[in-house]
Amino acid sequence: MVARLLAIAAMLSVPVPALADTHIDNIDGISVGRDGSIDRFTGMVIDEDGRISELLDFGDRPTREIEYRIDGEGRVVVPGFIDAHAHLMGIGLGTLVLDLSMTNSLDEALGRIAAYAAAYPDRPWIIGRGWNQERWGLGRFPTAAELDAVVGDRPVWLERVDGHAGWANSMALRAGNVTAATPDPVGGRIERIAGSRAPEGVLVDAAVPIISAAVPPPLPEDRDLALHNAQQLLLSHGVTAVADMGTSVEDWMTFRRAGDAGRLQLRVISYADSVDSMLLIGGPGPTQWLYDDRLRLNGVKLYLDGALGSRGALLNADYSDDHGNRGLPQLSGTQLRNLMSRAALDNFQVAIHAIGDAANAEALGAIEELSRDYQGDRRWRIEHAQIVDPADLPRFGQNGIIASMQPVHQTSDMFMAEARLGPDRLGGAYAWRSVLEAGGLLAFGTDAPVEPIDPLAGLAVAISRTNADGEPDGGWHPEEVITREQALAAYTAGAAYAGFAEGRFGSLTPGERADFVMLSRDPLLANPSELRNIRILETWIAGQRVYDFELQNR
Amino acid sequence: MVARLLAIAAMLSVPVPALADTHIDNIDGISVGRDGSIDRFTGMVIDEDGRISELLDFGDRPTREIEYRIDGEGRVVVPGFIDAHAHLMGIGLGTLVLDLSMTNSLDEALGRIAAYAAAYPDRPWIIGRGWNQERWGLGRFPTAAELDAVVGDRPVWLERVDGHAGWANSMALRAGNVTAATPDPVGGRIERIAGSRAPEGVLVDAAVPIISAAVPPPLPEDRDLALHNAQQLLLSHGVTAVADMGTSVEDWMTFRRAGDAGRLQLRVISYADSVDSMLLIGGPGPTQWLYDDRLRLNGVKLYLDGALGSRGALLNADYSDDHGNRGLPQLSGTQLRNLMSRAALDNFQVAIHAIGDAANAEALGAIEELSRDYQGDRRWRIEHAQIVDPADLPRFGQNGIIASMQPVHQTSDMFMAEARLGPDRLGGAYAWRSVLEAGGLLAFGTDAPVEPIDPLAGLAVAISRTNADGEPDGGWHPEEVITREQALAAYTAGAAYAGFAEGRFGSLTPGERADFVMLSRDPLLANPSELRNIRILETWIAGQRVYDFELQNR
Repeated sequence: MVARLLAIAAMLSVPVPALADTHIDNIDGISVGRDGSIDRFTGMVIDEDGRISELLDFGDRPTREIEYRIDGEGRVVVPGFIDAHAHLMGIGLGTLVLDLSMTNSLDEALGRIAAYAAAYPDRPWIIGRGWNQERWGLGRFPTAAELDAVVGDRPVWLERVDGHAGWANSMALRAGNVTAATPDPVGGRIERIAGSRAPEGVLVDAAVPIISAAVPPPLPEDRDLALHNAQQLLLSHGVTAVADMGTSVEDWMTFRRAGDAGRLQLRVISYADSVDSMLLIGGPGPTQWLYDDRLRLNGVKLYLDGALGSRGALLNADYSDDHGNRGLPQLSGTQLRNLMSRAALDNFQVAIHAIGDAANAEALGAIEELSRDYQGDRRWRIEHAQIVDPADLPRFGQNGIIASMQPVHQTSDMFMAEARLGPDRLGGAYAWRSVLEAGGLLAFGTDAPVEPIDPLAGLAVAISRTNADGEPDGGWHPEEVITREQALAAYTAGAAYAGFAEGRFGSLTPGERADFVMLSRDPLLANPSELRNIRILETWIAGQRVYDFELQNR
Repeated sequence: MVARLLAIAAMLSVPVPALADTHIDNIDGISVGRDGSIDRFTGMVIDEDGRISELLDFGDRPTREIEYRIDGEGRVVVPGFIDAHAHLMGIGLGTLVLDLSMTNSLDEALGRIAAYAAAYPDRPWIIGRGWNQERWGLGRFPTAAELDAVVGDRPVWLERVDGHAGWANSMALRAGNVTAATPDPVGGRIERIAGSRAPEGVLVDAAVPIISAAVPPPLPEDRDLALHNAQQLLLSHGVTAVADMGTSVEDWMTFRRAGDAGRLQLRVISYADSVDSMLLIGGPGPTQWLYDDRLRLNGVKLYLDGALGSRGALLNADYSDDHGNRGLPQLSGTQLRNLMSRAALDNFQVAIHAIGDAANAEALGAIEELSRDYQGDRRWRIEHAQIVDPADLPRFGQNGIIASMQPVHQTSDMFMAEARLGPDRLGGAYAWRSVLEAGGLLAFGTDAPVEPIDPLAGLAVAISRTNADGEPDGGWHPEEVITREQALAAYTAGAAYAGFAEGRFGSLTPGERADFVMLSRDPLLANPSELRNIRILETWIAGQRVYDFELQNR
């Protein structure tokens, strides 16, 4: 009930003007070509369908009389950002759980947990994340007994800040059948009460799923609210479209409910989480563009390997910090090709998750083979493309491959990547410039909620290879920086092209939907630190204002 | 490829006029109230949204000037027929498989099967439906050996006319791993060769899925073509809306593809095939009315028992022709109540398949119990309600129950029902009039493809209790005939109400969508034989002509 009220209240929070031809004047507008070419304009005419009918230069007048005129007050206007790789429901469901990451003591955390449980009496489980006993200065893990003292009527399950441990109360331990008789799984540990085998409350690493698998899936109402929250977050960051990487059938139904109800403002380019989901959602092929270009199933996301942090990425040689380990394949080469064929047969687009150099080589090889049978405009996508053997970089320039990369991963991962691979195998790491120079196509995103949504941080990293503190000095492998224009293109027109959306949105040109953001500063004239501090003043989709900083922060 | 071309060609076959205010004049129009009340009119004004804005009497002029006028040439106009219980994809997929429903002997059927197998040498399975050993006068089920004699190179799987049994050849039995060691599943029966445990060829009720699950599912393209064919068939019979009883997620996706592409003309009121499908499709509750009132998920269909023909219907006493057998329950009373609760909790509508008198008593009892907890406008539906203990008939007048019945089942089943139940247990059989007199609500349909789509045959049976040959003389249990007006109401406004669609379509009154049929004769002035010969001249949905007899038969 709380969730429903919240959803209704939030729906009403952004005023939507009536549809009419609109002339937005006095702006510093920037159109972006996929190749990084830039055009400047000072006015824009938007038709009743929310499409741009004209761009105007200083002194130009619209070719016909427009009744409704808005003064842009000289603001900078760029195409709405397109996050080419995000997890929409992951972002949203993350907003529905208790966040303990800011708590500074066990007592403060327990107080928050008690208050949250009281505020949501109908939730069958209390789910949270973000605790850190180091930050609390506790000197030990917390216990089930401590949780029981504040929530005894329902299971409680709280992930540690790094996701590598979970803290359960007694009811959650029971729900997961964790007892003194439960052995520690390989790669995991159940904390035990001193002097006994009884579980104490915290489970580590591979033991985490024993309880997390028992957590009930979200209700449809929760999914609706999650989508709403994700959408609001994205719009507040100037993101007007996302490629949803790994859409389940439940996710798709949630998107459609929002679209059917007129609540879908964000544009969602969907890649199903499996070939089965793809066929159920799409049927004989990719769906239409639904809801005035707000939703389309393009194809499928396939996982070829894992991640670097957990040493699951597939490498050509052993991990430097784990000899004998070259990662965990998620699909065999044959499986990959079979799934790609099944998708390509009916013109579904294929997006392959490949992080390690061996995975990227395998993906490139599979694309080269499949391209012989499945010709035409396929736009094969490689997601992440983090670690590439330099010898393989030129292959990104063939067969119309799109490298869908996340700039912020570079600064988040750089020290870890050095530990995993050693200094000599990073010549093709996060190699945006090399991909472009090979003739490959770039699409930028964040992998949110793995990284924050903020696209301006992505631009700052792309042009500097430095983090928010400006480190490392001069940038990490600075030979791979790209220009502001190239970075902006990868985050707008390039990401649109990667999703077969060019001509619909992404470049701010006549005929496209009027999706744009008003910024507090020109991103093409800003240094990395200034880029990170640019404020999103307004976000517009299809000629309608869907986010207004002042309104939200009055 | 053939399928795609067919679909495209067919899409173009009916010209759709541009939307504009329209005045249809010079008609003999009939509005229908849910209670069987009738209003006559001679003209109708339809607005741009396809809704009726005015009904006119002779000499009336529209309250405003209407540019586009159509001369109705004095034709009779009634609300579009609503089939309150049909299987839309079953109708459509049935057009893609071998139809044995018109065969009059086992030999004739075997000849058809052999010819079909020869005509489609590439089909991996031979799939068909519609056989009826009663119609054949066979006195027993057919056997696998008889099928093997005509098709030995591929599996053959043929559904009985009522869908409650299937007939397999030996290869199909092998594909389903049906052997002498296979036990009868709960609620099902594997026919065995006399004196052994070896399967004979026919599987009944809950045993049917053992083989049908092994049949390769239709491709999405096949589903799209099937829906198209079903729609064309229904429109040609004057049916403008159906309640789809048992929508799978795949079916729903097919409906949405048609809706998204603007190909859905028919209105579809959907009841999911399980609570799981219901929750996946609907999420937090029934969907909206989508595509201008053309599609909505209302709730769920639950199967409480089987059918009379296969002796799966649940009876209060033994089958007269099978002592010791009282039918096969598909759900326990507890299961039924739990599923009903899960649906009612989120305001989904519940439709319970109940054929035998014990099943109807159980359904009535469950509704009475649930109605205490789930109040408000629930419109609990009992589907078929074929054999009701006369003592239970008054219970149909309580708790707003809708009896969703199929008149033609009465004439198809009458002799079989007498055999199954004996003459003394038929006092509440197909008891339309008793339901109405008890204060219950009637919605009429066909169970197509179990029965033919033709609604005029249904009207003829409803007012006469006789079949197409006028038999039995004077009607079968003629005390249960209803008036023409009551029958027409059950097939229009009553069926709309049963689907929460009143005010949207079904009665041909101002504010509703202009869904109607033009008939060759007034059904309220026709005898049963004349009713069966009425021609559907034109079918209109939302003020657009979607079927034209002359155009189709030039």
